[in-house]
Amino acid sequence: VLNTSSLFCFILMQSITHPLKIAIIGASGLAGQELIRLFQVSPFAYSLSLFASGRSAGKACPLSGQLYEPLDHFGQGEYDYTFLAIEDALAIALQPILLEKSRYVVDKSAAFRLHPDVPLVIPEVNGGVLSLGAPWVSSPNCTTTIACMALAPLHRAFGLKRVVAASYQSASGAGVRGLKELEAQVHCWSQGLETHSPEVFPQPLAFNVIPQVGAIGPGGISSEESKLLLEMRKILELKDLEVYSTCVRVPTLRAHGIAITAFFEKPLSIPAAAEAWGANPGLAVQLDGYATPLQASGSTLCHVGRVRQENDNAHTLSFFVVADQILKGASYNAYQIFEHLERLKKLNCEAII
Amino acid sequence: VLNTSSLFCFILMQSITHPLKIAIIGASGLAGQELIRLFQVSPFAYSLSLFASGRSAGKACPLSGQLYEPLDHFGQGEYDYTFLAIEDALAIALQPILLEKSRYVVDKSAAFRLHPDVPLVIPEVNGGVLSLGAPWVSSPNCTTTIACMALAPLHRAFGLKRVVAASYQSASGAGVRGLKELEAQVHCWSQGLETHSPEVFPQPLAFNVIPQVGAIGPGGISSEESKLLLEMRKILELKDLEVYSTCVRVPTLRAHGIAITAFFEKPLSIPAAAEAWGANPGLAVQLDGYATPLQASGSTLCHVGRVRQENDNAHTLSFFVVADQILKGASYNAYQIFEHLERLKKLNCEAII
Repeated sequence: VLNTSSLFCFILMQSITHPLKIAIIGASGLAGQELIRLFQVSPFAYSLSLFASGRSAGKACPLSGQLYEPLDHFGQGEYDYTFLAIEDALAIALQPILLEKSRYVVDKSAAFRLHPDVPLVIPEVNGGVLSLGAPWVSSPNCTTTIACMALAPLHRAFGLKRVVAASYQSASGAGVRGLKELEAQVHCWSQGLETHSPEVFPQPLAFNVIPQVGAIGPGGISSEESKLLLEMRKILELKDLEVYSTCVRVPTLRAHGIAITAFFEKPLSIPAAAEAWGANPGLAVQLDGYATPLQASGSTLCHVGRVRQENDNAHTLSFFVVADQILKGASYNAYQIFEHLERLKKLNCEAII
Repeated sequence: VLNTSSLFCFILMQSITHPLKIAIIGASGLAGQELIRLFQVSPFAYSLSLFASGRSAGKACPLSGQLYEPLDHFGQGEYDYTFLAIEDALAIALQPILLEKSRYVVDKSAAFRLHPDVPLVIPEVNGGVLSLGAPWVSSPNCTTTIACMALAPLHRAFGLKRVVAASYQSASGAGVRGLKELEAQVHCWSQGLETHSPEVFPQPLAFNVIPQVGAIGPGGISSEESKLLLEMRKILELKDLEVYSTCVRVPTLRAHGIAITAFFEKPLSIPAAAEAWGANPGLAVQLDGYATPLQASGSTLCHVGRVRQENDNAHTLSFFVVADQILKGASYNAYQIFEHLERLKKLNCEAII
């Protein structure tokens, strides 16, 4: 143990004397851009390497002025942390070189989330599963993260048995292209023009809702709904948790809302739920009021509102939770994973000293 | 009995020789307009009297060219049917004169829906509770109607125990003013202009979702959620039915969607559910696909899609249902109630002859 710890201590010392070497792959996308913004206001000393696909490579990042490097330059460096804001297939393809060149990989893709050796982490919920010995960490699906942020404190206090969820997911959940497609449709409508056929979403999204997020798989369940079930079970360590969900795309630009009805083993009251939530700095709870996606956009918090107990059933609670899915649902959660690992390094080092 | 039947027979005869005298109060609103359209394509011989509020009175109906009469002219006539597409308070205020001047009142407002003497009717679901002796009939809340259309056939086959529902309700659910408010906000956004403060909805609706439909009442439950619970219990004659719901306004123009997870006493399968739904002419079921609000707009059907059985729980079924809330959720349902009463009159008369 001492040897490993000494190594970490050495790394820490390096990070004090040398800035942390941070790489972001997929830096020009929405999540990549938010991550850059988070580092720009962070207390850490760092140097950033920004990698982007062919289209963006060579262009300047509007936030830092730095040029995006093509992906094949990645192997030329060595990194303390590499953040992945890319598609699953690319994460899988890059895995070997990532593990070779980067001490830690914080992966926003779904590629390895369910792998038994990969911690799937929301720091406020299960930060304890992070360890300095696990180089690859996955950040969960955005809708899952938002739901778990609200459910985990209740689960710890009252024992979660069953979740029924319906989501209100924004266009930017499908990236810049999703956002642009909605915006273009709305402009066309406003100008009385014909809308082009949708390319990103399966149907027009302007003035519509589409009850499908991701591909429809076995049993008619969408990939997003399947993620919600499997990732929630892993994060909450509840292998038999029942999760019933309908994931729906709505014509919002940013932030995902979720209407949740949860069923618990122990009885609870609204004040007891408020107490369970109270301790969590990542939550903003309004028992009577609520936040909307427009209000949650740009906030790192998960906003819980419309808290109700229906049918006089003391084993249930219903509420509406909304959060910026690019921040807490992706970049901010990934950034928090990085912070948590840095804290572990420091603790580890102090323990030795 | 004979005397009553003879009276109905006389009424029927009148309706053969004389056109049915139909009044619509609130004729210039969205639901009123759709009702006029439905009569225009109906096989019945009728004469229409259109009543509207001060703003519209004296203007010509764009569909029929007829002038809207002010409400205080209503008492000058006698009517076979009066349709109410007005607010609760006005329905209550007009009740005495309506019962005096109209043989039947088909009421779209919520004012008397829960009254024990008032049939609350979705003809395909509980048409059997209609009787020629009940002059006042209420048409249910739009979201309730759409949910019940999908749930009732399942309930008859498998015994409904619990419903968890989250709605995606369009701007026109709040009438022409709601529709105009959303449209104005979208135009402003497209032209890069500041949006005015919302007047109809509690927050801006463009690019937003608002988890509140109606006023928030006791226990933090909204009036729409309360209607869903109480009206569903009455229509399905299940006084202990558990209904958990979150009603949400979304920036669509027309048609309400509902994500439903239902729990049943008896086990069921997706094919068994399809069979139960199969017989209902008011439903369009797609087991694998789905319809969106844009597709359901203008249709009198309830479109059921995304049919799933989650967590290997044979006692549950999840699906997404969407329907035009102005048609099946209001005007078409009211029209069907009228048709059903006319059919009863005819049957009653034939029984005597």
